[in-house]
Amino acid sequence: MTSPSEPRRAAVVGTGLIGGSLGLALRSRGWIVTGSDADPANAAAALEIGAVDAIGEDPSASVTFIATPVAATVDEARRALERTDAVVTDVAGVKAPVVAAISEPGFVGGHPMAGSEQLGLDGADPDLFVGATWVLTPTASTDSGAYASVRQVVGSIGAEVVSLAPEEHDALVAVVSHVPHLTAATLMNLADRASDKHAALLRLAAGGFRDMTRVAAGHPGIWPDVCAANSAAIAATLDELVSELAAMRDRVSSGDRDWLLGVLERASVARRSLPSSAVRPERLTEVRIPVPDRPGVLAEITTLAGSTGVNISDLEIAHSAEGQRGVVVLVVPADSAQLLQEGLANRGYQSTARSLE
Amino acid sequence: MTSPSEPRRAAVVGTGLIGGSLGLALRSRGWIVTGSDADPANAAAALEIGAVDAIGEDPSASVTFIATPVAATVDEARRALERTDAVVTDVAGVKAPVVAAISEPGFVGGHPMAGSEQLGLDGADPDLFVGATWVLTPTASTDSGAYASVRQVVGSIGAEVVSLAPEEHDALVAVVSHVPHLTAATLMNLADRASDKHAALLRLAAGGFRDMTRVAAGHPGIWPDVCAANSAAIAATLDELVSELAAMRDRVSSGDRDWLLGVLERASVARRSLPSSAVRPERLTEVRIPVPDRPGVLAEITTLAGSTGVNISDLEIAHSAEGQRGVVVLVVPADSAQLLQEGLANRGYQSTARSLE
Repeated sequence: MTSPSEPRRAAVVGTGLIGGSLGLALRSRGWIVTGSDADPANAAAALEIGAVDAIGEDPSASVTFIATPVAATVDEARRALERTDAVVTDVAGVKAPVVAAISEPGFVGGHPMAGSEQLGLDGADPDLFVGATWVLTPTASTDSGAYASVRQVVGSIGAEVVSLAPEEHDALVAVVSHVPHLTAATLMNLADRASDKHAALLRLAAGGFRDMTRVAAGHPGIWPDVCAANSAAIAATLDELVSELAAMRDRVSSGDRDWLLGVLERASVARRSLPSSAVRPERLTEVRIPVPDRPGVLAEITTLAGSTGVNISDLEIAHSAEGQRGVVVLVVPADSAQLLQEGLANRGYQSTARSLE
Repeated sequence: MTSPSEPRRAAVVGTGLIGGSLGLALRSRGWIVTGSDADPANAAAALEIGAVDAIGEDPSASVTFIATPVAATVDEARRALERTDAVVTDVAGVKAPVVAAISEPGFVGGHPMAGSEQLGLDGADPDLFVGATWVLTPTASTDSGAYASVRQVVGSIGAEVVSLAPEEHDALVAVVSHVPHLTAATLMNLADRASDKHAALLRLAAGGFRDMTRVAAGHPGIWPDVCAANSAAIAATLDELVSELAAMRDRVSSGDRDWLLGVLERASVARRSLPSSAVRPERLTEVRIPVPDRPGVLAEITTLAGSTGVNISDLEIAHSAEGQRGVVVLVVPADSAQLLQEGLANRGYQSTARSLE
């Protein structure tokens, strides 16, 4: 542990869009960042744009971010865990296979929901994570101090942390990211094929079509791995989508206006209700939860909050001076404290709440 | 015909987003605009924001825009054609049923590919059509003077005109507008349903999902009519989409990385090639086409250019002083003049080209 006056040190493995943005964000907050990349030219470019202070490995880093493509994540995380006592976290878009392969307490699975269709370091941005949701997937084997460290670091660069079980994360990103991406690519290819016969087609592609297909411009290379790593959830969601679109086709053919209007009205209400970004609540409540000092408690509490939609604004772990108990202190929006306390009670945790004015 | 010094007069039937934007755009260029709406409050609001000079009908208008929902378009266009000799054009998003129902020579079918998820007059914008593609669908019954007038007016407010056969327009908008819209609504509803069980889901919806579902926030009320009016093309495109997504589902399940990579690479190339907007060519060529003075010639020539992707920058019709012949003069990008001339020759039109330096 370094003293507060010494700069904190981080390592980034993989200096593409996410790794480069991490480096820029951490360095702008006074961290010393060391970076490496399978492609030495990428690492050199990261040094040149100021995303890292040095190229290589840093045995003194307190946290290592694995920001490689998903296929390399497990190997790189294991290597980092072997060479250092530092906390290691990753950014892969699929979590269950990664987390299942790494049981070391110092590893915390993570996934920042931020990106850009821009490829690699060219899109790197120190503010990429400001206001973005960053999922963490602690499990029973995760060290609570490691979890709290990663949470603190990613919060300090502007991200809003949501903790989820790895499997829940994977099911949800299939719905809001993977299948939408595959659908955008499919719509783009349909239009492209039609434009071979009708040269005017692409001139008719207005803003709505551009918005819908924008993600399809992104880097195709990462997707076969993502599809392989999350194939069950993606296939299940595609099944649902195919079934809904086939139903829509039949209702269009039969001229069922009421059904179509109902579907479109539900979608319109849902889209307009989509929160534009995490809102900072005006009133906060502190919830204190006495816990047994055993592995998995923090994961259980934080993923309970995540899966019930309770936003944890702040988190502290107070170990008792004697005995095998501690206290987890969560700061949450005042209007969701009761929901959290009920969920905790259902799992056998008694808690107390205090309004923070 | 008014003299050049007198202000030109237009009428707008339906003062919503499109009608209101038309009024603002025309008034800012010195037109006198009279507007009406089935809902008197809409017409009053249009007057208040300066989208029209007066409420009602204008027997002296030289052009009337029917900017009602598609279900009312045919009736309103017929009424306008009965009460005036003015040119009448419409903005409905489906063209074949509208154009088939109105055979008067003074009617020109049209569809501006511009809009906004914002509803009604609140989104009205005098620059809504700047750089937007505006499809015109002249047919054998369309008067060539009426076509040229509408083309000139919508060009003067910044739109780029593409002329297409009504059926081709409808097939193409099914691919680039209607089915993408229905798909966005379906994806939004899948996510909304999943969020009932998983409260965190919508916090995981990052920029890509927001982009893809943005159009679903729009006005649901217009869609049952659009689906009814263009049901065959929409159903055919949905069939294709369902079949492609079902194939993708199977390849995800079987882990066919090469197939998935190929699909995503094609989509990425196609999306990055999507023109961001009509580019003003540096070099232009004037193509002169002697034509027999009979109905349908102008429709044939302009829709040939539209369907082969040749952008008409300017159009003039010169009637010969004697006899039954005239000359259509098209100004097109220099690099597409040859394509146009070949297409014309295939249909029996001999043309001459002259570079405009």
